[in-house]
Amino acid sequence: MIKIISVVGAGECDAEVALLAQEIGVLLAHRGFAVACGGLGGVMAAACRGAKSVGGLTIGILPGSDPVAANPWVDVPIATGLAEARNFLVVRCAQAVIAVGGEYGTLSEIAFALKIGKPVIGLRTWQLAREGRLQDFFTQVNTPLEAVEACVAALG
Amino acid sequence: MIKIISVVGAGECDAEVALLAQEIGVLLAHRGFAVACGGLGGVMAAACRGAKSVGGLTIGILPGSDPVAANPWVDVPIATGLAEARNFLVVRCAQAVIAVGGEYGTLSEIAFALKIGKPVIGLRTWQLAREGRLQDFFTQVNTPLEAVEACVAALG
Amino acid sequence: MIKIISVVGAGECDAEVALLAQEIGVLLAHRGFAVACGGLGGVMAAACRGAKSVGGLTIGILPGSDPVAANPWVDVPIATGLAEARNFLVVRCAQAVIAVGGEYGTLSEIAFALKIGKPVIGLRTWQLAREGRLQDFFTQVNTPLEAVEACVAALG
Amino acid sequence: MIKIISVVGAGECDAEVALLAQEIGVLLAHRGFAVACGGLGGVMAAACRGAKSVGGLTIGILPGSDPVAANPWVDVPIATGLAEARNFLVVRCAQAVIAVGGEYGTLSEIAFALKIGKPVIGLRTWQLAREGRLQDFFTQVNTPLEAVEACVAALG
Repeated sequence: MIKIISVVGAGECDAEVALLAQEIGVLLAHRGFAVACGGLGGVMAAACRGAKSVGGLTIGILPGSDPVAANPWVDVPIATGLAEARNFLVVRCAQAVIAVGGEYGTLSEIAFALKIGKPVIGLRTWQLAREGRLQDFFTQVNTPLEAVEACVAALG
Repeated sequence: MIKIISVVGAGECDAEVALLAQEIGVLLAHRGFAVACGGLGGVMAAACRGAKSVGGLTIGILPGSDPVAANPWVDVPIATGLAEARNFLVVRCAQAVIAVGGEYGTLSEIAFALKIGKPVIGLRTWQLAREGRLQDFFTQVNTPLEAVEACVAALG
Repeated sequence: MIKIISVVGAGECDAEVALLAQEIGVLLAHRGFAVACGGLGGVMAAACRGAKSVGGLTIGILPGSDPVAANPWVDVPIATGLAEARNFLVVRCAQAVIAVGGEYGTLSEIAFALKIGKPVIGLRTWQLAREGRLQDFFTQVNTPLEAVEACVAALG
Repeated sequence: MIKIISVVGAGECDAEVALLAQEIGVLLAHRGFAVACGGLGGVMAAACRGAKSVGGLTIGILPGSDPVAANPWVDVPIATGLAEARNFLVVRCAQAVIAVGGEYGTLSEIAFALKIGKPVIGLRTWQLAREGRLQDFFTQVNTPLEAVEACVAALG
């Protein structure tokens, strides 16, 4: 059975972040992973586009009820009708989560992944602190290649 | 983008019902549909087995949190952790629903499909009545071929 | 801790059905139950109105994100943002379910209650059949008093 | 209709954090708010205990299917059967969220509240940073009284 990695990030992003997400999609597909995401634009679309460019399989877990909202690089659109609550499913269905940039929705996905014990790898994303001190609650990396290698390592 | 049809039915079924579900899986895959289901055994496994036997794509929307619970013919396991509430997703993600035999979970899927306006085709499944009178609230068919043709017709 | 009974039915109903639902709300509150429902109009509003008329507690599990959508007799509005998937919660949170009249959403609630083993009592609602034969898959009653007494009996 | 404020925090906590949560429960109930939470122990139980000590109304949105898992100070147990996905409901049903201490589940609730635009007030809880720099993405306070006053102010 195929293993799924979710790539999470904002629905709108600048070109630089999109390139990072796209490269992660390429590398995950090369490694034989399916790429899941929230199915919309920005980082989600870029990751799917990357995966599809090398023949990967892509899954979009959509907030709405209509699969046509999926970006054009989604193979398997899962329309949920659950609005933002679908973020939990994006995390739940994956073996690990790679966060690229991102806004509050991405933070909710990072948090939920940590809660349920899924490996989280972050690239230019949120950092967490307690009592004024930044701590490494999850793996932060600097490049798409490091992200995917950290992901593979975490899955053992 | 691929169109998804969900095949719903009980997690345990006799050989005759399994053959019906398997044939529906074959026919849906032949027509180019992906087959979604609840990902477990019985009718779900039979439909996936049929679809895979002719190279189709199969999706299992699982009640639990672990993709390994999916039957061996599921390509894309979507572990939800939502228990029986995942029945809603099985219906929501599909263009139409084919019910084969089935117990109360299947009835919940038929009902939810009717509620949100998805075409429902039934084969040896629940029938509905009001005031003591059976009525055709959804299409009932007698063979797998009729089921898939009714499904195609409903999708226009 | 208070025990919750859900009253399910259509969001629009005629005056006669509304009176039945209202009387069920009165009787449930008299017995010390909280009344849960989908929080909107029709049968839901009538059941809440009945319960409030005798000082009962009412809970509305709403499909949308805004508690102001609740009918005026809801004490505790639980906005879910889950659209029709909230039907599962209406059933899950209750000790038993009383269905009064109803459309497809009500059928989904009856089915889900049967699936997860909650007592279901029906009044002028759906009937179920297999192979052309109506069967008693759940308790059908003729009056609000019978509904509430069947509910109490089922909870032992 | 009663206004609901959710108090979120870990299911186990030390006596000091419990006292903070309890005091928040007292103050919210004094102001006429219902207190919602995840229904279990630790901060959740303390907030409910505080609210009940002054006659407030308490709501527990439980991860499991059985209302008996609720702490003894929950008036209205909403068993969801959605596991950790119930965190979304704890936030969704509230007008605002007060986070006291907390682990990853609390972080998911903070994040989801920020995502859907609910006011968040934090007391000895997570802090967020981007690019190595801590920023005020939500209101942080030092005392229960400040928490409740910030909450009231946010609701305007």
